[in-house]
Amino acid sequence: NDISHDEAFEILLAAKKNAEDSNVLVNIAVVDAGANLKAFIRMDESFLGSIDVAIKKAKTARYFDIDTGELGELTQPGGIIYNIEHSNGGLMTFPGGLPIKNKDGKIIGAIGVSGGTIEQDRAIATAGAKSIVD
Amino acid sequence: NDISHDEAFEILLAAKKNAEDSNVLVNIAVVDAGANLKAFIRMDESFLGSIDVAIKKAKTARYFDIDTGELGELTQPGGIIYNIEHSNGGLMTFPGGLPIKNKDGKIIGAIGVSGGTIEQDRAIATAGAKSIVD
Amino acid sequence: NDISHDEAFEILLAAKKNAEDSNVLVNIAVVDAGANLKAFIRMDESFLGSIDVAIKKAKTARYFDIDTGELGELTQPGGIIYNIEHSNGGLMTFPGGLPIKNKDGKIIGAIGVSGGTIEQDRAIATAGAKSIVD
Amino acid sequence: NDISHDEAFEILLAAKKNAEDSNVLVNIAVVDAGANLKAFIRMDESFLGSIDVAIKKAKTARYFDIDTGELGELTQPGGIIYNIEHSNGGLMTFPGGLPIKNKDGKIIGAIGVSGGTIEQDRAIATAGAKSIVD
Repeated sequence: NDISHDEAFEILLAAKKNAEDSNVLVNIAVVDAGANLKAFIRMDESFLGSIDVAIKKAKTARYFDIDTGELGELTQPGGIIYNIEHSNGGLMTFPGGLPIKNKDGKIIGAIGVSGGTIEQDRAIATAGAKSIVD
Repeated sequence: NDISHDEAFEILLAAKKNAEDSNVLVNIAVVDAGANLKAFIRMDESFLGSIDVAIKKAKTARYFDIDTGELGELTQPGGIIYNIEHSNGGLMTFPGGLPIKNKDGKIIGAIGVSGGTIEQDRAIATAGAKSIVD
Repeated sequence: NDISHDEAFEILLAAKKNAEDSNVLVNIAVVDAGANLKAFIRMDESFLGSIDVAIKKAKTARYFDIDTGELGELTQPGGIIYNIEHSNGGLMTFPGGLPIKNKDGKIIGAIGVSGGTIEQDRAIATAGAKSIVD
Repeated sequence: NDISHDEAFEILLAAKKNAEDSNVLVNIAVVDAGANLKAFIRMDESFLGSIDVAIKKAKTARYFDIDTGELGELTQPGGIIYNIEHSNGGLMTFPGGLPIKNKDGKIIGAIGVSGGTIEQDRAIATAGAKSIVD
């Protein structure tokens, strides 16, 4: 139950198309079930700093099998896992990272998007993740 | 006054049994009096991101001889040691890390647990730490 | 004079096709003129350790605008830049990394390939780099 | 095809028994198919520096599915992958790391041992890896 490179490419292209349709410049990363980098694309003129953010969003989403935006609700001051971002070489805990599920609902990897607003990043990540189950 | 590998194993197994009895999937780390990794087990299907969190919880508990949850009360915005998490390669300052004491009350190491809720992680860590003094 | 994401994708796919035709499982990384990750693909079942090697080969090739295999001839014991591998977070100085040039011969990025023998990695990298000038 | 925590424990104990029978003090690490730490034990009075060496030996063996000692023959000055040790956060390329195979010959993880001579470390790693197929 691991994502294939064909699926990873399909997800990358679906996310990129969504970003282009929305006129957003992003970096898009896909990791496999082991949270290892599987596929990546950096759109021209997107933020330099978003390369690492996109990769870390994807890894974070798979490390804890969660939407990175939901994780961020738990890591705020006073939250139950405040500052967990200091683990695993740095976590990203705002929207834009999502687990990728296959048609059976099993998590097979994750996607991370960075470069737009957090709403745009999440929408692009969602479009990517959904592309292999539609 | 350092934990032995036999004690570390006993603690690991006691914590693992408690986790299994509670149907929680966790990573469990034990460090020695020098805050060096002494024993570790990763339960099947537990979160990938919890490996590092468990190890860092154990180290944090021994670095400052404190329950990591109590430490977290001091690291919040406005707290007296705000953002101390940036030291020592990353601290974890929410529940799940505990010093391990011998029968004389002397600290000989620490345990860190990650994978369940913070209450579950703390309960499992407590069960582990207590196993060698009961 | 920077590689575009369309060119990076074209290079990635050309390299992947060459690898598949040769029955070699590799990781392929493309970096831009700034040595930043531009595109990446990890073929199914390729070595886990090759993710980082492929990325570092591409970065190394652009850091010094050189075939990584040629660089390695200078880094041996007694060589003029012995152990330069310690710089830049780790260089890879054996074959598989190549600068990417546009039709005017200007370097616009680099490619790194890892997973096969060094001859295979270099051949796959060459096929990728050449695809946009043929 | 991933190692279970029960298998990892069995391997750890078999390796530890072999070390004790040989009067060698070692650190023993087992990683899973994803090269993630699965189980670890540090024998009393073993070298402090061997904790990281044992873990890196296990990871290296799985990163490239190879006996770390065989890998080291290729990384010498003049070797085909000289200084690959600078990748993946540091590789260990001398004996003591071995892939772990299941009864079908499929690699499901790896073991790393450090603390004795390289011959002792390799023998202990072999005893551990073999314990689940005998």
